[in-house]
Amino acid sequence: MAKETSPHAIVIGAGSGGLTAAIGLTRVGKTAVLIEAEHVGGDCTNVGCIPSKSLLHHSKEGVLSGPELLAKVRERRAYLRDHEAEDVATTEGLDLRRGRGRVIGEGRVEITKPDGSTENVTAPNIVIATGSRSRPLAIEGLPEDKVLNNASLFELERAPKHLAIVGGGAIGVEMATAFNRMGSQVTIIEYAPHLLPLMLPEGGEIVKNSLESKGVRVVVGAGASSFDPVSNSLMCKPAGGGPEVPPVENVDSVLLSVGRLPNSEGLGLEDVGVTVDKRGMIEIDERGRTTVSGIWACGDVTNRGGTTHAAGAWGRRILRSLVAGPLPLPDVPPMPGAVFGDPEAASVGEQSVDVPSDVRRIVIPMAQIDRAFTDEVTDGVVIIDVRKFRGKILGATIVGPRAGELIGMVSLSMKTGVPFHKWYGTVWPYPTYADALSRAVDAYVAEALPSVHKDFASYAAGKAKRLLKR
Amino acid sequence: MAKETSPHAIVIGAGSGGLTAAIGLTRVGKTAVLIEAEHVGGDCTNVGCIPSKSLLHHSKEGVLSGPELLAKVRERRAYLRDHEAEDVATTEGLDLRRGRGRVIGEGRVEITKPDGSTENVTAPNIVIATGSRSRPLAIEGLPEDKVLNNASLFELERAPKHLAIVGGGAIGVEMATAFNRMGSQVTIIEYAPHLLPLMLPEGGEIVKNSLESKGVRVVVGAGASSFDPVSNSLMCKPAGGGPEVPPVENVDSVLLSVGRLPNSEGLGLEDVGVTVDKRGMIEIDERGRTTVSGIWACGDVTNRGGTTHAAGAWGRRILRSLVAGPLPLPDVPPMPGAVFGDPEAASVGEQSVDVPSDVRRIVIPMAQIDRAFTDEVTDGVVIIDVRKFRGKILGATIVGPRAGELIGMVSLSMKTGVPFHKWYGTVWPYPTYADALSRAVDAYVAEALPSVHKDFASYAAGKAKRLLKR
Repeated sequence: MAKETSPHAIVIGAGSGGLTAAIGLTRVGKTAVLIEAEHVGGDCTNVGCIPSKSLLHHSKEGVLSGPELLAKVRERRAYLRDHEAEDVATTEGLDLRRGRGRVIGEGRVEITKPDGSTENVTAPNIVIATGSRSRPLAIEGLPEDKVLNNASLFELERAPKHLAIVGGGAIGVEMATAFNRMGSQVTIIEYAPHLLPLMLPEGGEIVKNSLESKGVRVVVGAGASSFDPVSNSLMCKPAGGGPEVPPVENVDSVLLSVGRLPNSEGLGLEDVGVTVDKRGMIEIDERGRTTVSGIWACGDVTNRGGTTHAAGAWGRRILRSLVAGPLPLPDVPPMPGAVFGDPEAASVGEQSVDVPSDVRRIVIPMAQIDRAFTDEVTDGVVIIDVRKFRGKILGATIVGPRAGELIGMVSLSMKTGVPFHKWYGTVWPYPTYADALSRAVDAYVAEALPSVHKDFASYAAGKAKRLLKR
Repeated sequence: MAKETSPHAIVIGAGSGGLTAAIGLTRVGKTAVLIEAEHVGGDCTNVGCIPSKSLLHHSKEGVLSGPELLAKVRERRAYLRDHEAEDVATTEGLDLRRGRGRVIGEGRVEITKPDGSTENVTAPNIVIATGSRSRPLAIEGLPEDKVLNNASLFELERAPKHLAIVGGGAIGVEMATAFNRMGSQVTIIEYAPHLLPLMLPEGGEIVKNSLESKGVRVVVGAGASSFDPVSNSLMCKPAGGGPEVPPVENVDSVLLSVGRLPNSEGLGLEDVGVTVDKRGMIEIDERGRTTVSGIWACGDVTNRGGTTHAAGAWGRRILRSLVAGPLPLPDVPPMPGAVFGDPEAASVGEQSVDVPSDVRRIVIPMAQIDRAFTDEVTDGVVIIDVRKFRGKILGATIVGPRAGELIGMVSLSMKTGVPFHKWYGTVWPYPTYADALSRAVDAYVAEALPSVHKDFASYAAGKAKRLLKR
């Protein structure tokens, strides 16, 4: 294929989404300018998945002391970062520019280089993939030097004696798991009534019990309100008039993991007319298009889902349009999520606490599975929601060993449109945790078969309701 | 549902296949007589999956000493065995009889009870699910008290100082892994050129390297020929004129894991005309029928695949015919296999060493996956075979962490008929080992798209060849 001489796209941000789009273009003989202000690899490589999973791995092994372990994690990260930067630098057709990008007009981006000088680049397409950052939270009296976030955490020289974690989502749970293993006293404070508030409550409950059994203090339904720097106590306020929460005492560091803020400022978006929602997220359509023609966006900076794998998936979708033009795209695939604590917790699709009447919810405790017996695993669950009659899989929550892998089976079936009853009769090797899914299918078929007439009635009523809602 | 007064079936053998059929019958209001000569649960619970996976789990934990660990495994097994026996005893409609069953005519079985007395039972259907036992191997000079098999192994009071394992299949590899962790010196001798001879050679190679890196001596391409009881040395003979093999010295015990023998003797099969092949395996058709009407068989005693999960799957197939009569059955699903060593190794479907011209083989080293990076995993592989053009998945071999779960994704897609290219665009959570499958799809699509015309030609030629073979 003949190489283009002028770039096909300018990609701002060299994280998961941006790299996917930019490198993908070079693979089909097109060229791209890739602008990165910090490190190649984005949050994932530098302050996210890679160091956090390294920390979880090494802390589980339990061989290295805290300071050695933290140094090792930085060393591994540096290795991967260099490797990725080298890859990008040597990719033919990819022009990596260091600096900050700003959209200054149709197809035009101004780069402010590290030395403060600027230059302009032009291309028919601009892809914004600038990601997100840790959402700050003002806690009265809390000294700046006690505050950690997902970036500064990995610069620690040693594990804090007592780490308070404000926010019990994925980052909070994973870091509680790791620092507990490293010998820190750990307290998590979560405002919602459950840890992992993006999942069904059952998931967070199991993870909470597991953390508590390992000595982590878990406070749910409360927010961190102030800090007393004399006693180093973090005061918590119950949410919505709940019971008083005793102060969290002798806190050395406070990790803030209360969500993400999109990096949508300073990009000139308002000047060119790109619509950003009230949370600061760039609005995109199912192709990854912003409200301005020729400007695309993907990943954490958008309103259609963050995380490394979602950003990558959206980078691919944009790539398909950049390469193949207006050809039809497949539906947006379900975007699973996984939290790599102990046990792992993963989910995909939509599940509400109250089960709609046209949905059958199958619940299989992981402890019923023979592999759980041999591994002495007593907690964990598979919860799968299936539309009655038609068998369409709507969503699943899996908590237990290897949940991050198991959820892939559900994600794959949802994407390829395989209804749940078609799973029936599949053979999984014994004894694996996949057996929980096998039991779920058995239970589904056993329940659904005798009630097929009632199921059809629920399905028809639900279908009518869904049509009316459109 | 009204209960039948006379049994619908007599099931001989209370292992995975027999229990599935017998308990399944009771769930639809029918009754069954279940005959068991030893323990409820069969090989799996008593001398197979359950104690072996318990041993692997506890030896990996490394908390208990050898004798404590072996006692713990027996204790866990006894717990499960009692639990299962209790379940069976309290299942309404299930009539458990202790003794040995022998078919004495159409629908008639004679039970020889533990006290030697006999009684006859009758029913329209007989299901034979008597399983298999360890295949003996005569090794000249080897004293009986040094011989172990998969049954006697779990009765050991302490781990042998030096355990020689003859046979490097699933049992050999798993027990080498466990006893190496328990501090035993371990030597495996495998006659085939690779460990795990039922898988592609790449699988066995990775497992061999991993075992060797942990200090296990692995001898491939040789058979154990004789034993010198003075020096306690096991002599090995190279297969097919290979190089000389130094003797395996100071051997305390020899575990024989050179395959299984079907328990098809003493059942009266020859008298009623049930066809047994030359390996002693009962021939069954795709419904689980033997050559005699009303006599069914499943599991290790048949010619259509052993293991717990396969026996269970065949038990289900028989159950469907017993309950629903001659209604059409779905195709026999692919039966995956998994070996729970370190790393795990799993496979499903058919893969030949030489790749046929109409098959595309995709190979992804596990070390390319980011989760492998964070977990410092440097070995492992995904090998997936796909029919060119149509994208039908033919088989897969997966070696690496959680391979036993990952293979389920392939098994499920093969069973539900989802072609491999339809996986494209599925999102798996990051960073998981499922990423290796995601990369495999990407590689497949990248290779297949540009060569679609050539692929069609290979597919058409292969299709013609397959049709001619019929």
